[in-house]
Amino acid sequence: MSIIVLGTVALDTVKTPYGKRNGMLGGSAVHFSMSARMFTEVHLVAIVGKDFPAKHVEFLKRKGIILDSLIRSQGKTFQWSGEYRGDLNCALTRKTELGVLLEFCPRVEPGQSNIKNVFLANVDPDLQMKFLECLRRPRLVGLDSMNYWISNKRKSLLKLFKRVDIFVANDREARDLSGENNLVRAAKALRKLGPGMVLIKKGEHGVLFYCDKFIFSLPAYPVDTVIDPTGAGDTFAGGFMGYLSNQKRLDEKSIKNAVAFGTIAASFNIEAFGTEKTAGLSLGALRSRLAGFKKMVVF
Amino acid sequence: MSIIVLGTVALDTVKTPYGKRNGMLGGSAVHFSMSARMFTEVHLVAIVGKDFPAKHVEFLKRKGIILDSLIRSQGKTFQWSGEYRGDLNCALTRKTELGVLLEFCPRVEPGQSNIKNVFLANVDPDLQMKFLECLRRPRLVGLDSMNYWISNKRKSLLKLFKRVDIFVANDREARDLSGENNLVRAAKALRKLGPGMVLIKKGEHGVLFYCDKFIFSLPAYPVDTVIDPTGAGDTFAGGFMGYLSNQKRLDEKSIKNAVAFGTIAASFNIEAFGTEKTAGLSLGALRSRLAGFKKMVVF
Repeated sequence: MSIIVLGTVALDTVKTPYGKRNGMLGGSAVHFSMSARMFTEVHLVAIVGKDFPAKHVEFLKRKGIILDSLIRSQGKTFQWSGEYRGDLNCALTRKTELGVLLEFCPRVEPGQSNIKNVFLANVDPDLQMKFLECLRRPRLVGLDSMNYWISNKRKSLLKLFKRVDIFVANDREARDLSGENNLVRAAKALRKLGPGMVLIKKGEHGVLFYCDKFIFSLPAYPVDTVIDPTGAGDTFAGGFMGYLSNQKRLDEKSIKNAVAFGTIAASFNIEAFGTEKTAGLSLGALRSRLAGFKKMVVF
Repeated sequence: MSIIVLGTVALDTVKTPYGKRNGMLGGSAVHFSMSARMFTEVHLVAIVGKDFPAKHVEFLKRKGIILDSLIRSQGKTFQWSGEYRGDLNCALTRKTELGVLLEFCPRVEPGQSNIKNVFLANVDPDLQMKFLECLRRPRLVGLDSMNYWISNKRKSLLKLFKRVDIFVANDREARDLSGENNLVRAAKALRKLGPGMVLIKKGEHGVLFYCDKFIFSLPAYPVDTVIDPTGAGDTFAGGFMGYLSNQKRLDEKSIKNAVAFGTIAASFNIEAFGTEKTAGLSLGALRSRLAGFKKMVVF
């Protein structure tokens, strides 16, 4: 079954110890799509400006991403500029130019309102709610957010929590939002806020999944040359949600596999700048690395 | 087969958000022994002062630890005082009184020099080397150290590296010693210094094992109430080395199981102050939690 993702399409400028890229294609919805497209049909909902290169639109189309609800506006495309130093776990944001994001009012085409799987990538929670209300009866809704909204739109976020199935957060966000330092406690506290499933991403340390029935924990796939971690979290979410979108049952087995596929997708993402690696990725390559990974974690 | 551990026996004063203990039994050799004893006979080599309570000696004996090479000296027992705040991953050291450690010259009884399994817990690398030279033909030698020695006795430590099979380090030490931020690269660099096996402990994030033939990675067992993490690393090493001491073959299977047992032993250690939990622990309890853990990481 298809999935629809609300998020950002951005022009990213990224500097890491391995080089620099200026204004490359990025954004949460793009990274999510590059990963989820390997499992299912992906509909992307976002906004770009008139400066957005036609080649990026062509590229996304070529990758099979449905762009019916990609708004093209008169302003400037959202731009993010960041740098990673020795510790590639944490980006130093150099510049954020919201541009057309400030006027973003997401909409879906009539045919899209029946899509059953939804991912609300990180944008203003009020927009996420508005978008969610455009959809008729989703069966699986995932939500991502960021510290900025946790601090500045906590109420909206908490309202949204009652409406989603899965909350995906990084460890710092999970701690801030729950007020718990211990991640198991943080996951339990977040679950109490609404979402039946909580996924805490820990960057190079892997991921912790929590629901009432079971806990699942995986280390990251060991990558020895991390080129650019931008978008790793969205790539993870794309693999996770993409895999689940295609599963009849959302049970322990399918959820564990989804976490594993998300982990592997993210491990490819960080091996190159932007979408340079994930753009050429196939399900076969994912499966092959997954088999090796299994050996590294199973005892 | 037996194992012999060189390390410290200490009187620890520890404060955490869950309470405080004054002058409780601690030290690397003690935590290691409490864990390794579940798998094999443990010989402890350390020094204590005349202030060391007889009840602690009785306790260790009752737990089956062989104390033939525990030196009782006239000075004061090594004391460590530390505090853990919100983030229980990192201790703030309040006071360290080396006491009798300053005059420590480890020795083994004649019968002990044939022991085949050895763990050199964190003490001065010159003492570790001296001790290692007392042993005839060990088949498996594990080594732990700390940042202080990495900075101040690097040469001695590097010499020791040529003589050991397994180097156990926490993530910060591995990064400092190798000069590599990426932990897979750090492990590879440490392996090149001598030890065929490298184990990087990441606290709440689990552990990464590296050798030429395979990589193995496990998350930590999820504990939602961490009372006192003191000694978790030594407890891990005790489970890991203790399990391997009893295995005929040091192959992929036994090493993975050893890492898993170390992980589980450490998870019990942090659930109470000092040795309060590990002292009463049995192999049955370890096995039972291990079975649950397996479900949390296998997909």
